[in-house]
Amino acid sequence: MDDETSVSRQTAHAYVESAERRDWEAFAALLAEDVVYEMPQTRERIRGRSAFLRFNMDYPGDWHLTVRRVVADGRHAAAWLDTRVGDERQDACVWFEFSGEGLISRVTDFWPEPYEPPAGREHLVERW
Amino acid sequence: MDDETSVSRQTAHAYVESAERRDWEAFAALLAEDVVYEMPQTRERIRGRSAFLRFNMDYPGDWHLTVRRVVADGRHAAAWLDTRVGDERQDACVWFEFSGEGLISRVTDFWPEPYEPPAGREHLVERW
Repeated sequence: MDDETSVSRQTAHAYVESAERRDWEAFAALLAEDVVYEMPQTRERIRGRSAFLRFNMDYPGDWHLTVRRVVADGRHAAAWLDTRVGDERQDACVWFEFSGEGLISRVTDFWPEPYEPPAGREHLVERW
Repeated sequence: MDDETSVSRQTAHAYVESAERRDWEAFAALLAEDVVYEMPQTRERIRGRSAFLRFNMDYPGDWHLTVRRVVADGRHAAAWLDTRVGDERQDACVWFEFSGEGLISRVTDFWPEPYEPPAGREHLVERW
């Protein structure tokens, strides 16, 4: 169980780091052949290593990814990323599932955008 | 380490479940006195158990929370929630930090909203 968690943790880090380096060979080697990628916000799904690799290789912009946190637990992990394209930065939340061989079998991405807070809670909060 | 992970995992579940039950005594008992709550999307921060408790008790709407996944790792955890207010549902991503006593010392919430996908990747994706 601890070994499984270690492999999941390392693989989640390697996923982000290999994408950041545009090392697509290393990136692809982390993925199960039948990996499924989902973006619930747009209800988009990509099936299979080759389509998912193409999606990442073709992703527009001079994007950069840094791990803020990885939490791994058996065959699951979650990563909180700091992403940048030019001067724009955004957090991302990525959920991973792993196969018995330690390959990434499912990735679920969330891209939470900034918004203005609703009125009525100013007495409880500070802003930064 | 494994014990710490178990406590973190149970506490993350109890946080969601006690909020869903509006059991504010149980909810408060999970929180460190100096808990810090942050919402990076609105750049809002709440400091301290009593203000954070008030924020949750006052949160408007007939909201409901269900855990989709909890990933725990030492003194960290992440929860993927299915949230509903009336007919509207939204995913949420919650990141936890725990004190040495197993109390929640930091909560970071993300509320990713639906959006339309950009053009140009239709050949790689399916929609649901």
